[in-house]
Amino acid sequence: MKRKEKYLDIGFAKLDIERQKRKKAVETIYCESKTDEQLIEIFKKFDELKINAIGTRASKKQYDAVKKVIPEVEYHKEGKIITLIKKEIKKIGQVAICTGGTGDIPMAEEAAITAEFFGSNVKKYYDIGIAGINRLLDNIDKIREANVIIVLAGMEGALAGIITGLVDVPVIAVPTSIGYGSSFKGLSALLTMLNSCAEGMMVVNIDNGFGAGYSASQINRKIAKE
Amino acid sequence: MKRKEKYLDIGFAKLDIERQKRKKAVETIYCESKTDEQLIEIFKKFDELKINAIGTRASKKQYDAVKKVIPEVEYHKEGKIITLIKKEIKKIGQVAICTGGTGDIPMAEEAAITAEFFGSNVKKYYDIGIAGINRLLDNIDKIREANVIIVLAGMEGALAGIITGLVDVPVIAVPTSIGYGSSFKGLSALLTMLNSCAEGMMVVNIDNGFGAGYSASQINRKIAKE
Amino acid sequence: MKRKEKYLDIGFAKLDIERQKRKKAVETIYCESKTDEQLIEIFKKFDELKINAIGTRASKKQYDAVKKVIPEVEYHKEGKIITLIKKEIKKIGQVAICTGGTGDIPMAEEAAITAEFFGSNVKKYYDIGIAGINRLLDNIDKIREANVIIVLAGMEGALAGIITGLVDVPVIAVPTSIGYGSSFKGLSALLTMLNSCAEGMMVVNIDNGFGAGYSASQINRKIAKE
Amino acid sequence: MKRKEKYLDIGFAKLDIERQKRKKAVETIYCESKTDEQLIEIFKKFDELKINAIGTRASKKQYDAVKKVIPEVEYHKEGKIITLIKKEIKKIGQVAICTGGTGDIPMAEEAAITAEFFGSNVKKYYDIGIAGINRLLDNIDKIREANVIIVLAGMEGALAGIITGLVDVPVIAVPTSIGYGSSFKGLSALLTMLNSCAEGMMVVNIDNGFGAGYSASQINRKIAKE
Amino acid sequence: MKRKEKYLDIGFAKLDIERQKRKKAVETIYCESKTDEQLIEIFKKFDELKINAIGTRASKKQYDAVKKVIPEVEYHKEGKIITLIKKEIKKIGQVAICTGGTGDIPMAEEAAITAEFFGSNVKKYYDIGIAGINRLLDNIDKIREANVIIVLAGMEGALAGIITGLVDVPVIAVPTSIGYGSSFKGLSALLTMLNSCAEGMMVVNIDNGFGAGYSASQINRKIAKE
Amino acid sequence: MKRKEKYLDIGFAKLDIERQKRKKAVETIYCESKTDEQLIEIFKKFDELKINAIGTRASKKQYDAVKKVIPEVEYHKEGKIITLIKKEIKKIGQVAICTGGTGDIPMAEEAAITAEFFGSNVKKYYDIGIAGINRLLDNIDKIREANVIIVLAGMEGALAGIITGLVDVPVIAVPTSIGYGSSFKGLSALLTMLNSCAEGMMVVNIDNGFGAGYSASQINRKIAKE
Amino acid sequence: MKRKEKYLDIGFAKLDIERQKRKKAVETIYCESKTDEQLIEIFKKFDELKINAIGTRASKKQYDAVKKVIPEVEYHKEGKIITLIKKEIKKIGQVAICTGGTGDIPMAEEAAITAEFFGSNVKKYYDIGIAGINRLLDNIDKIREANVIIVLAGMEGALAGIITGLVDVPVIAVPTSIGYGSSFKGLSALLTMLNSCAEGMMVVNIDNGFGAGYSASQINRKIAKE
Amino acid sequence: MKRKEKYLDIGFAKLDIERQKRKKAVETIYCESKTDEQLIEIFKKFDELKINAIGTRASKKQYDAVKKVIPEVEYHKEGKIITLIKKEIKKIGQVAICTGGTGDIPMAEEAAITAEFFGSNVKKYYDIGIAGINRLLDNIDKIREANVIIVLAGMEGALAGIITGLVDVPVIAVPTSIGYGSSFKGLSALLTMLNSCAEGMMVVNIDNGFGAGYSASQINRKIAKE
Repeated sequence: MKRKEKYLDIGFAKLDIERQKRKKAVETIYCESKTDEQLIEIFKKFDELKINAIGTRASKKQYDAVKKVIPEVEYHKEGKIITLIKKEIKKIGQVAICTGGTGDIPMAEEAAITAEFFGSNVKKYYDIGIAGINRLLDNIDKIREANVIIVLAGMEGALAGIITGLVDVPVIAVPTSIGYGSSFKGLSALLTMLNSCAEGMMVVNIDNGFGAGYSASQINRKIAKE
Repeated sequence: MKRKEKYLDIGFAKLDIERQKRKKAVETIYCESKTDEQLIEIFKKFDELKINAIGTRASKKQYDAVKKVIPEVEYHKEGKIITLIKKEIKKIGQVAICTGGTGDIPMAEEAAITAEFFGSNVKKYYDIGIAGINRLLDNIDKIREANVIIVLAGMEGALAGIITGLVDVPVIAVPTSIGYGSSFKGLSALLTMLNSCAEGMMVVNIDNGFGAGYSASQINRKIAKE
Repeated sequence: MKRKEKYLDIGFAKLDIERQKRKKAVETIYCESKTDEQLIEIFKKFDELKINAIGTRASKKQYDAVKKVIPEVEYHKEGKIITLIKKEIKKIGQVAICTGGTGDIPMAEEAAITAEFFGSNVKKYYDIGIAGINRLLDNIDKIREANVIIVLAGMEGALAGIITGLVDVPVIAVPTSIGYGSSFKGLSALLTMLNSCAEGMMVVNIDNGFGAGYSASQINRKIAKE
Repeated sequence: MKRKEKYLDIGFAKLDIERQKRKKAVETIYCESKTDEQLIEIFKKFDELKINAIGTRASKKQYDAVKKVIPEVEYHKEGKIITLIKKEIKKIGQVAICTGGTGDIPMAEEAAITAEFFGSNVKKYYDIGIAGINRLLDNIDKIREANVIIVLAGMEGALAGIITGLVDVPVIAVPTSIGYGSSFKGLSALLTMLNSCAEGMMVVNIDNGFGAGYSASQINRKIAKE
Repeated sequence: MKRKEKYLDIGFAKLDIERQKRKKAVETIYCESKTDEQLIEIFKKFDELKINAIGTRASKKQYDAVKKVIPEVEYHKEGKIITLIKKEIKKIGQVAICTGGTGDIPMAEEAAITAEFFGSNVKKYYDIGIAGINRLLDNIDKIREANVIIVLAGMEGALAGIITGLVDVPVIAVPTSIGYGSSFKGLSALLTMLNSCAEGMMVVNIDNGFGAGYSASQINRKIAKE
Repeated sequence: MKRKEKYLDIGFAKLDIERQKRKKAVETIYCESKTDEQLIEIFKKFDELKINAIGTRASKKQYDAVKKVIPEVEYHKEGKIITLIKKEIKKIGQVAICTGGTGDIPMAEEAAITAEFFGSNVKKYYDIGIAGINRLLDNIDKIREANVIIVLAGMEGALAGIITGLVDVPVIAVPTSIGYGSSFKGLSALLTMLNSCAEGMMVVNIDNGFGAGYSASQINRKIAKE
Repeated sequence: MKRKEKYLDIGFAKLDIERQKRKKAVETIYCESKTDEQLIEIFKKFDELKINAIGTRASKKQYDAVKKVIPEVEYHKEGKIITLIKKEIKKIGQVAICTGGTGDIPMAEEAAITAEFFGSNVKKYYDIGIAGINRLLDNIDKIREANVIIVLAGMEGALAGIITGLVDVPVIAVPTSIGYGSSFKGLSALLTMLNSCAEGMMVVNIDNGFGAGYSASQINRKIAKE
Repeated sequence: MKRKEKYLDIGFAKLDIERQKRKKAVETIYCESKTDEQLIEIFKKFDELKINAIGTRASKKQYDAVKKVIPEVEYHKEGKIITLIKKEIKKIGQVAICTGGTGDIPMAEEAAITAEFFGSNVKKYYDIGIAGINRLLDNIDKIREANVIIVLAGMEGALAGIITGLVDVPVIAVPTSIGYGSSFKGLSALLTMLNSCAEGMMVVNIDNGFGAGYSASQINRKIAKE
């Protein structure tokens, strides 16, 4: 086995091309701390290799810079994601994405686009937070049909625990930074979710819609027989 | 007005006797950091003045020491409270006390005994946490009948927000130190409660059953026309 | 009972219309993380249904956007609140609102407008912090006349405890983010208030004038015989 | 549907009997903050109803007390779990459980017993932490065969991210409180795991072997076609 | 100048004998982390040199060990201080020491004994916390007579700010670890004191009665013309 | 005694005019959270009453607004202070102000102007931090001549402890927010100073040059026989 | 020895000229909190004395201001460093600099330029983070050839521990502030690195590329026989 | 290369035997979370293989248990270390170990025994903290002779920065948990050290004498030409 073939060295970055075999998924590009030049270079490589690519936390400005060179890329504004689709993605199974409020929608969209990119169907249940619990109870039967449920909530973050208590499906909880004062930019929701006594919940980083979408898709595809 | 009459100086402590007029309630004795000798001295004064007294966070050992000198005192073991009843307490209205789990019961008992000492009827709804939301929904109509609701919960602490969303009654939330890991001795539940978007909830310190019982009783009595 | 009638689904949000019956109050709109388009849509629904609406943490820009479509809305600049009054509000009882300094006034105004919106008379006692305790002592007799007292203070946040020690009325304490250095954006005042040994105080989130105004009004109306 | 049948009210606690249908799993008993009397009462009910029961964070002393009344209960010392098996558990699929060091073994055992109780086969890979990465690399092919991987690590907690980067299987990371100084009782490992950029990892509370075991089993069974 | 004469090397420790000239005060012995053998050795040196010595945070056990070898040492039980008086201390001026509650008395005694050891007269005003502000107002005129005021308070710690607002004397605030829940072992009181807007207050470490006593005595003596 | 004469009510604020008698100092105006209109109103009152006034944390913009109405006010740019001098200030004694680096100079200037405003002479020793300890040792004899020493330092904040160990004068330590990474905006320096084992140091809030200047001046004047 | 010759007093700053003898290195200029005027003054002094100078955390704007007066200065944009080279620097030995991702490159460049300025050869291994461990394993043999290794990583920060486990060379770990959510601006990576159980790792402050470069160069030169 | 030979699998643990080649040092045994049985098993293996072994954070009880089976092991009580010496250790170069106070000595001994075990000569300078800086200045010339300096300090932790500013030798700083109140079990000293602006200092975990001793020895041996 020749190690050198495993990744592509483009100077400032080393692209993990072989990952598609090992992880059955391409490497994701975290755009936030990259320059326009670096992003263009990276997307160009994926384009040449005809591999689908996904870039998260991308600004509109970054997208515009990449777009000029690779016109095929698409921008998902709310989720702040750039995608480059070189071969069609076949979606199977179902992931349900729920949010406590409207403020959580951007992170929910990040999760949704990610889950779809990695091959899962997505259903969305936004603004069903616990302040008016009827909104949740009315939708719970449909939510239960998914193979995996993602719940995003800020402030107190209690929605994830409530839903987990009502279903027999793995739940991935995403604390969001929505809130003020002692919400401490998502810390409150993070602690709520980690300490939930509802059985069957797992947690990802604050605002990490991508991570939730990736894991949800991975589990969903395995259940739906990838 | 002679200030000297306002309190009783017994050396190491100054008893706020006049408070009964100003606050319409006696001064509470916080036992935790007091020596047996100090407690005996304080209860003796209340006994002589024929004023009801309540001592919180009292150990059995402290109670035994006081009991020897003032046999009339009573100990409420679960709530860790010593009371001295010199004139009968008339109870009015109703305070509902709910807990998420069985571990919250000691603080709930502290709240209950306090609310009763300050003149309120109490109804208890223990172990109705959100992991099994049916337990809550079955009791919610009875809980709604109270003038004030106290909710105690540890771990994620979400129960307070759920109840607040379902009732039209002031809710006092008590985060408890029940939990482990990132519950950080009640911090998680405290943050959950402070950040709840449910309207009509107020919060007291971690494990502060006394504070909740006092405020609940004060509000209840004013509503029930003291 | 048909659940579907309980709320209004407008796509990105689900308005809890039925709340007016359950909570005896309309649902509040948290504007901070909503787009102009979302806010316009929501206020239009309330306008059509002829229900009073209140939107908190609203920027002037958001107000201007809504104003263009629904000219009836009003903006309360200091408290950053948008209100839409479709039927006259009858105010009863009295809520006293006290601040430690002039910096706390925006959150105090949020509390005041909220308490009035939900049907309470409000009296204001601003800038009576403990640095010059005479300012407080001069006003304490008038403050005592209220059914509920809201105290807002930043920095050390001690005013709430002082007032609570002087009155026989429930006190709702609001820590504010006014301060610098180790005030940690309100954390210092929050801890001060949670740890107060004054009996009869409850706390809400940092800068949460709305929550204090809502709870104060709810308690006041019940005491004043709603 | 009659709500009253959904759970069993035994005074201080309300057993969520119906959960077996809703969650396809019995309610777990969190022993830590319960008295011996309460535990005996609860296990007696499960015994009468012939339902399997599992109690976590149980001391040897608690076990001894329950054992006297219900001789059938078993104690899993390292994982601190009491089980009561009334009908045989059929195990399917496979969950892999890895630890960084020997200090993580008690929480790993909690996870293992839980996963088995809820119907999964378990394989254990203990003491394969990153200080000597060969130990991990030698076992990685066998670890990859599981449907779900649980990784427990304290101190820096990096093992979870390393494993996730090497496999195409969902990973559940459990930060443990093993360590000293700035490990802050597991906080360091928790943050490491939440911030991992490895794709496909989810996190549970510090030392929460139970939660990891439950979720892992739930996912494993769905993949293995429950 | 020969440096070697500046201190005394006794192997495991180096006694700063010259300090009496430089700092006009002897070196204080922090007993908490020293062995009995080390303490005996140190006190023996001071005894031989006929220099007054003061040891803080000393247990009764440590005192007993030293006492056996140097019978002249005295133990101040509440303040946990060992003193060895080889020449009489002349006390001048006045330091006032105030506490919020009875629980703060041990740290107050540490401050008092320290201030006296370093040559100041001390007056004590214990248990004058803000829950009953009359107790403070009655004593304020006498407190004002001191050259420096030390205020010790736990829980919310507001007493220091109140007193500072009422006097024209430097105030040294000592947060104490008395409290529970979100008092976080004195952090709450520390933040309150640091953020006080009362002019003329300075703060020392949590429970640091010694530091307050030392600084107060130093300032007092300079004002009283040492 | 007529309380009404004690302060001046100007609507949004209540000026503590009587303070000059009680505290022997005027009330300081904290400008940061005040509107231009409020500041103008307040300075106008002081101007009419012919009382010296000092406003801290004032922006240039605020100064310009006040200047237009009261041309006599002066702006101290580095210290961000507005002063209005209606009667000449007589300065006595000496306060030494030391900084670790050049970044601490703005807070040092706030302290210096404050100390001078309240009647003390000031000597400045800037940029004498411990990285090059010679700079400190060369100046220590002159520093020792002051009645009180203020030490400002960010990052590790160790300078205050070093100086305190070398002098027989009260030291007021000011942690500054200069630094990055784990300096956490001054928290690191604050903790260093609070935990110093050097005897004779007291601490004020992060960046609180004003508080240090005020206390230093108060102590200095009492020693210099005010 | 005349102390006065040890440093250069230029009013607002005191340059530690003698350091070149004592520390065998010039004093570094921390630019972040200095004014343009101060920087020009300082660089002018170094220029006159013909001593090499290095200024860290310098903005382009600061560089432009200094450049106008001393045209010889150079700007290293990515590392935000200004250097003034008056005599040629001889580089010996080798320092390896590794980063987890591309976002860590600016701090890596700060380390690289610093290490070179202080006389070490540097080799760079960027973007070899653990998400794709092949990238690391492929380079490890070359990395091992250095005398000292610097590892920069944000988010989980695990790369430093992995490398340390694979080499027999001192490793200096630099946590970076790259990340979001619970990375808490580098705190997560800092804790990971401090708690690593890999033997032979030392840590510097978050984003402190300079400190790592300085220490690495110092150790490298001593090993390479300076 | 056959991977299986790289380590020894003894069931619950996998001993990294090959490390002696890769890391030029044996694997260290972290005793704190191991059972007596596990420790005996591990030491037996090292004994059989005739490899030197070192176990840290070992209690006397653990030592006694191992001693019974392998009589050759030695216990270093103050440093809490068990060593098993199978072949003589040749010591070269010099590591200096300094402590601020006597309370830091146990961690200093851990460092000293570790450095000696891994082949370095050690010189100790205990109790030279900054409260009396003469103690440090008198010893600094001797300290400078070492190849590497370890500085251990608790409370404010400033000693490490002072020493670093005075020498041209790499310094490894060890924050210790000695202190009380806001020292937060070593956090204060840790932050002080991380934020030091003295050039040439690196930091290890709180109380991590082992880590400092290991790294110091590694650097020392490379400089002294291993």
